[in-house]
Formats: sequence, structure tokens, C-alpha cells
Amino acid sequence: MDCRIKEEDSSGTNTSARTGEIAPELLDMGARARKAAAVYGAAGTGIKNKALLAVAAALERGRDTVLAANLEDCRKAEAAGTGPALLDRLRLDQSRLDGIIGDIRKVASLDDPVGTVLDSRVLPNGLSLTRRRIPIGVIGVIYEARPNVTADIASLCLKTGNVCILRGGSETLGTNREMVRLIKEGLAEAGQSPDLVQFIDSTDRALVSQFLRMDQYIDMIIPRGGSRLSALCRSVSTIPVIVGGFGISHIFVDESADLTRSVPVIINSKVQRPSACNALDTLLLHRSVAGAMLAELLPELERHNVSLVADPESFGILQALGCTRLEAAGPDTYDTEWLSMTLGIRVVDSLDDAIEHMRCHNATHSDAILTDSLENAKRFVENSGSAAVYVNASTRFTDGGQFGLGAEVAISTQKLHARGPMGLEALTTYRWICSGDYLIRN
Amino acid sequence: MDCRIKEEDSSGTNTSARTGEIAPELLDMGARARKAAAVYGAAGTGIKNKALLAVAAALERGRDTVLAANLEDCRKAEAAGTGPALLDRLRLDQSRLDGIIGDIRKVASLDDPVGTVLDSRVLPNGLSLTRRRIPIGVIGVIYEARPNVTADIASLCLKTGNVCILRGGSETLGTNREMVRLIKEGLAEAGQSPDLVQFIDSTDRALVSQFLRMDQYIDMIIPRGGSRLSALCRSVSTIPVIVGGFGISHIFVDESADLTRSVPVIINSKVQRPSACNALDTLLLHRSVAGAMLAELLPELERHNVSLVADPESFGILQALGCTRLEAAGPDTYDTEWLSMTLGIRVVDSLDDAIEHMRCHNATHSDAILTDSLENAKRFVENSGSAAVYVNASTRFTDGGQFGLGAEVAISTQKLHARGPMGLEALTTYRWICSGDYLIRN
Repeated sequence: MDCRIKEEDSSGTNTSARTGEIAPELLDMGARARKAAAVYGAAGTGIKNKALLAVAAALERGRDTVLAANLEDCRKAEAAGTGPALLDRLRLDQSRLDGIIGDIRKVASLDDPVGTVLDSRVLPNGLSLTRRRIPIGVIGVIYEARPNVTADIASLCLKTGNVCILRGGSETLGTNREMVRLIKEGLAEAGQSPDLVQFIDSTDRALVSQFLRMDQYIDMIIPRGGSRLSALCRSVSTIPVIVGGFGISHIFVDESADLTRSVPVIINSKVQRPSACNALDTLLLHRSVAGAMLAELLPELERHNVSLVADPESFGILQALGCTRLEAAGPDTYDTEWLSMTLGIRVVDSLDDAIEHMRCHNATHSDAILTDSLENAKRFVENSGSAAVYVNASTRFTDGGQFGLGAEVAISTQKLHARGPMGLEALTTYRWICSGDYLIRN
Repeated sequence: MDCRIKEEDSSGTNTSARTGEIAPELLDMGARARKAAAVYGAAGTGIKNKALLAVAAALERGRDTVLAANLEDCRKAEAAGTGPALLDRLRLDQSRLDGIIGDIRKVASLDDPVGTVLDSRVLPNGLSLTRRRIPIGVIGVIYEARPNVTADIASLCLKTGNVCILRGGSETLGTNREMVRLIKEGLAEAGQSPDLVQFIDSTDRALVSQFLRMDQYIDMIIPRGGSRLSALCRSVSTIPVIVGGFGISHIFVDESADLTRSVPVIINSKVQRPSACNALDTLLLHRSVAGAMLAELLPELERHNVSLVADPESFGILQALGCTRLEAAGPDTYDTEWLSMTLGIRVVDSLDDAIEHMRCHNATHSDAILTDSLENAKRFVENSGSAAVYVNASTRFTDGGQFGLGAEVAISTQKLHARGPMGLEALTTYRWICSGDYLIRN
């Protein structure tokens, strides 16, 4: 039987009219992915781990060709005038490749969530009901720059019985192509279909919009890029999308906070890796401690060359303290994810004002309160809306590795399906299994 | 602080350009819903139950005005030439209203999933990590006909700390308007914001497409209608959508099945309520038992006036058995959800062929195997892709009430977030709560 001629989404409506033309090679990839998923989804943990180790071995063997391809990508990028920061992100060397291969073996060693029983009971009529974790099916991932993402996604999907279709960034096309070639080699050696990991080997942007409408073949789309990519996926995709990786991170310094102990937490949240999505963007200060907090904090901020963008009140305090890197806040200040050594600062009247500020300024990712008041900690946790909320800890912890998930496919900032760091469990769904003795409904 | 002037989706990108104009009254509803959700989401179970009981009491008091409004809706529908089946679906009477009010009180008596800890641990660095269930936030529901849906959705959302914005069918506009008026009255009496349950009091279809792009205010869209509505939501919505309620339901009669005991299960799946989405659409017969099974089944099918659409092989068998209501299968037969007393029949060579047939014919909802072979039951369960898979039981059990969920907001046929009947738990998400002693990341 061949499903690929059918053009129906899972709601049964013919979509071809709605979605316009989709390139035949994409439809073919989708059909092969769906077919491979139907088989691999039922594979046991041992079989899946064997595939992972074979993939790691293949990359091990092929490391020279991967590094050669990456060198070529970097040359092109440099010639195209790519900045040093991005260049560093796409560059591979022996030790980074060791890390990538090691991570694949680590994923093999993690527990497999598939097959877990979520709940189970026997109904009065004798129907036995079990909710069991199963793979999602076919997962499409659109990402940029860092070539390690190719291996991360592939290994997490292979561990959970999912098939992935990857669409990497143009700047790492050669590196990704070579890595996927080796991954398929490893899969074949393990007796698995090379269709389990597929790669859109093209930089044609038109393909992305077509890819996003292949709801008859793809169950979930994960965009790993900036907010523009997420917005494109949300508006164009007919496939459920996990939006993530973006959000304004806040720290609120409560009136009861231990100011001296707060300094290192604020500094760590801001400077430990300013380009990360969980790095601090906006510091909210309770009016009663604003002056004292900034007096203790400023020397450390200046030592790390952090520039400040301040509301009138904190601006006045900072000016009086002789702050050099200082600007007045503008209309977009508190909606800006800095991803750099810049920090927004604002004085608020109360915990409720802080919560209201966060509610109005896209607090969806990671927010922290620094406080010694149990009551205020509780209220902050209950009322802040982010995926990860912190009490007296750095926002930098929002990370699959830090949370002990082993790895992450993304950090979800939406409400549906998964929130925060998405590990293996977030790559599963469940099925109701119902057994009876030729049982009918009355 | 006022968020309503901001036009940002949760990925922080300005959407106004992308989404075109959204009616101010819709944006206003959204802003009020978001604001109400921020407060009500932290309410305890006692407070939420109090609100539910006040809503039930208000509907109790206002039953005459509801019935009057419904009578008027039915008059208009009749005048517009609406068929008896649909008329029956939108008609309310004293006993149906009793049922609706009783269901609200029942929801009040159910366990509240919000606040449950999904998992919790302390990391080696001392960070204490807890994953806790919280409300989703603001839920948009687009539905048709049956006025009880208005009360069902409102009560399930109120129980789980969510705010809902309802868009009912034009044929029940008056009934829904009156019910929502009373629900708001009850909420006010319980000291809650009337914004917790909102109603788009218009039949203007253009508003639906605008509603579907309010991702800055709405967290989840549930379309409860036909497959066209689901497809519209998928293609237009920038908000995560739960697609459901549609799918081809299959029963596979395995060679080892007890044929005599299979008859009532097949009949129950088909005729107990043919208009339901979990009613049997396609009967797959293993070649080795096709003749014997049809011989036992046909008299019962004819007794219930079921018309059959058969592949060549079963057509031949049925003809030989003197079947009267018989047609030859066409290209769309096995992709048709009949919702009527029609049944598709096909003979297959093996369990694998049955699974392959289901994979190609939109098996996403409810499928059953009738078998006495443990091995085949296991293989069917592992390889069929539907939200609910049955062994020796009627597909008609796929229902929130039957599954003991108390009630349902929808039956999801997609992979993300929830599958099958969606009860209270499916109206929650989770948050990571992380506490440390002024802890930083190294």
C-alpha cells in the first residue's frame, strides 16, 4: 500500500488546495519518514541504543571528513564576512567533535521513557484502561548555526523511537550533510532504516514554508532559531509547533532580600553567558532597597563591563553613584532580550507591581525572586507566568543538562505539550490501551 | 499597567503586520481574559468549587429564560429549514437543562489536578526542582450546535483555573447568550470576575479568523466541529490548536477471533450511536474468517438496517449471502467517516495488512482488534497509531465519561499535548519551580 499519493491532513480534509504545491522530494521524504516511524516506533530500548552506539561509532570513524567539511563551511562564512561570534558557533574542532560523539553515547545510557505506564485502572464494567507513553512519530526541526544540534536532535529522537527531518542553517550545510551521511551509515550498520534521520539538503527558503504544511506526514515542528523563525512557523505551519528559546528573563529583588548574597546571583544570571536565552534581561528592584542594592551591585556590574538601561528612578540613583555605562530606558527597553552585556533596570513599588511588569513584558522563560520572605517567595512562584520560576537562584539554570534531563531538544516557552527544557519525555505522547472480554457499551 | 496596546505574540515578534487587523472588541476581550487568568489561575480548589456551585445555582434560577431563548432559537432554525437531527441537537428541555446543571455540580465534586507535583528532586548542587501542574491560562473554544457545550467548557475551565472565550454556533446564539449571562451572574455572586467566561456574541465569520490570531492573549484553541473547522484552525491559527473529534474507526477481526462473541461488539460499535466520532467506520476481516464472520454478522447488520460498502472479495461473499443493502467500494470508501448507518468492509491477508490499511486511512481516533491471540493483540496495540486502541471491546468507549474522566472538553486526535478524551488534566500544563540558597551556576 502506498500512502504518499494521498494529500490529507489528520483532520481528513484535503489540504492540497489550501497549502498549494509542495515539492515532490519533500513529500517523498515525509512519506518515507512516516513509514519508517511506524516500524521504529515499536522498537525496544536495546535496539534503539544499539542504533545510537552505531551512529556514534560512524561519526567517530568519519571525524576527519566532518572536520574537513566544517573547515570549508567556516572558510565560506569568513569570506562572506561572518562575525567572529557566529564563526565560533559554527566551528568544529577535535574536542568539540569528541563532545558531540560523547553526548550521543550519553543519550544511549539514559532511561527510555517510551513504554512507561502513566496510569492504569479497571473500570466497573470490566474495561481495563492503560495510558502508555509512545513516540510522537515524525518530528521536523528547523535550526541555525551550531552543527552539534544535528547530532543532539538525531540522538534524542532515535532514543525515543521518533523519526526526524532536519533543516539546518545554510552556513553549516556542508558540515550537516556530512554528519547526516555518517549517521545514516551508522543506522544501516545497526540494521535500521536510513530514513530515520533525514536532512533537507538545500538552502532554498521556499522549502521551509512547504515543509511547514506537511501535516499529513509530520507530527511536530521545533524551530530552533530567533523569534522571527518562531513567528514564521506559528503563522505558516499547519503542524503543531513548539515555540521556545525566547523570552525576557527577570530578577526581582524583594525588600526582604539579603542584598550582599544577591549580588553574585544577579551577576551570574547576567554575565556567565550573556548570549544565552536564560541570561538576565531586566532587573526589577523594590523601591525600599533600590538604592542600597545598586550601591552594592554597581562595582560588580562595572567590573564585568555591563551597560545599564534604567528607568528615571534607578537612573538617578546610578548617576549619583557615578555609573559610567548608563542610558535612559526607552519604550522597548523592557521588551528587549539583550543577549549581550546590557541590562535593563526598573524600580517597582511592590511584589505585585513586579508581577504585573513581568506579565506585560513577555516573561515566558525564566524569572527569579531574591527574597528572605517565605510568603513573598510563595506569591511570586504562584503568580509569575514563566516556564521556570526561581527562588534565590540564578536564571542560568534553565537548561536540559542543568536540570538533569541529560540533553534538550529545545526550551519551550509556550503552554501546550511541554514547558522549559525539553528532554526525552517531551518527545513522547501517550495512547489509551483498552482491553475487555468482547465488551460492549450499554 | 496596561498590556492591551501591545501587539506581540509570545515569541516577541510584532504580529500586527502579519495578522492584519483584529477587531478592537476582540482584543479587549483577550486583554481582560489574560488579566482575569493571572488572578484566577492562583485560586485554590475551594474558591473554584464555590464559583462552580454559584454558576449552577444561577442557571437553576434562570432556567425559564434559558428555555425561552432556546425555544426562540429552535423556531428560527425550524423556519430556516433545519433538519430534525440538528434541531434535536440544539433543543433544550427541562430534563436536558437538569442534566447540564447536574454536570456542573459533578465537575465541582471532581478532584482538582492543579497544584499536583509531577516530579521533584534536589540536584547535587543543592537546587531543589519541582514540576507542578498549573492552569493553561486562556482557552478559546469554537463549537457548533449543542448548547450544553457552553456549560461543559465553562465548568471544566473554571475547575482548572482557566479562563475561556467561547464562540458558539449561530443556530444557538440566543441560548448561549442567555446561558453565559447567567454564568457571569453566578461568577459575580461568588466574588469572581465575569471575565472568566467570555462569549463572542456575533455570528460574523470574519471574527473567527481574527480570533485565531490573538496569540498574545490566548494559549490554546479547541475547535469542536467538523473536519473543515479543524482544517481552518490549523491553517489560520497562530495559537496552538487541539485538533480532534475526527478519524476513521476500524475493527479488525483476527483469524483467532471468537466470531460469535465478535458480533455484538461489531454491532455495538456501529449502531449504538452511529453519529458519534467513535462509531465504527471500517470493518477489516482476516481472509481466513471473512466468510464465516459475515455469515454470522449479516443478519444482525440487516436487522439494524446497516448498509454495506464492500471491497470485491467481501462483496462477493455478501452477495452470495443474499445481502440487500450492498454497494461496491469506491476510491474514498475507506477514508469516509460515515456518521450514519453505513459500514465499509474490506478483506485483508494478515494483521500486518490491517495495520498498513489503518496507517493509510487516517486511523487516529479509535481502533479495535477482535482476537483470542495474545501475540496478535500485543502486535496490534504496539503498531496501531490511534489515540485509543481496543482489544476485544467496542470503539464506542472512547469518551470522557466512559473513561471515568468525569467530562471532556474534546477528543484529541493529534499527537501533541493530549490524546483521546480530554478531561481536567488536559486543561493543565506545568511549571518548573526551582529554589536555592542564593545559588549560582558555575
